[in-house]
Amino acid sequence: MVDDCIFCRIVKGEIPCTKIFEDELVLAFLDINPWSQGHSLVIPKAHFSRLEDCPGSVLAAVAEKLPLLTQALVQATDAQGFNLLNNNGRAAGQLVDHVHFHIIPRNQGDDIIQHAPQGEYPPGRMDALAAQIRSLIR
Amino acid sequence: MVDDCIFCRIVKGEIPCTKIFEDELVLAFLDINPWSQGHSLVIPKAHFSRLEDCPGSVLAAVAEKLPLLTQALVQATDAQGFNLLNNNGRAAGQLVDHVHFHIIPRNQGDDIIQHAPQGEYPPGRMDALAAQIRSLIR
Repeated sequence: MVDDCIFCRIVKGEIPCTKIFEDELVLAFLDINPWSQGHSLVIPKAHFSRLEDCPGSVLAAVAEKLPLLTQALVQATDAQGFNLLNNNGRAAGQLVDHVHFHIIPRNQGDDIIQHAPQGEYPPGRMDALAAQIRSLIR
Repeated sequence: MVDDCIFCRIVKGEIPCTKIFEDELVLAFLDINPWSQGHSLVIPKAHFSRLEDCPGSVLAAVAEKLPLLTQALVQATDAQGFNLLNNNGRAAGQLVDHVHFHIIPRNQGDDIIQHAPQGEYPPGRMDALAAQIRSLIR
């Protein structure tokens, strides 16, 4: 637990939240400033700043709950689809340094998430990059 | 395995990919039309259309590999951050109906993902919606 982390304080009950799910390891609650109705946040109760710092077993515990949670969210909001989004680092839009997953109900034409155009790699670059990545996976 | 699913065909080796990781349950490869250098896709080898159809144990197996994969991707691309994004349904931008997670390396000011402004709930709506969602989580 980190004293000045807003999500740790929510886990401890020091700051209120509108809870939708809780077990020993995982907490899910409605985002107070939703991008769409039912926009929720799912977090591991333990504090880790970013996804790549988080033990695989902790992420697995969160992931295991996602089907149950997203089925309920889609049904309650009658959404056509949803995004699961996790931001790491300010450059990626992370505002609270406690790993969290946004679940964002979506409907056709709502334009809630947009992304840059697709690019392509110059010849040879893909293979070289993949080789470099594979060499770093141990 | 689904015959006309492009990701099932990649898993079977019928369509090539630039692989960065593979084990019994999980495959990760570079996206051929990247939003940023190193944009990768991580999939369960088994075919499930959307996240909410996917057994928790399968998602857990995928999630467990994410720290290792994202550490390597961030290091290889020297990115300041990254997004993990999973789209479900055409309304949410899903183009291939086989559950997949985008990992998108990010740097300050690259504007690769944008989202709609935050909203708010009318009084009482949050509690009512959360109660409805909780009642659907069994």
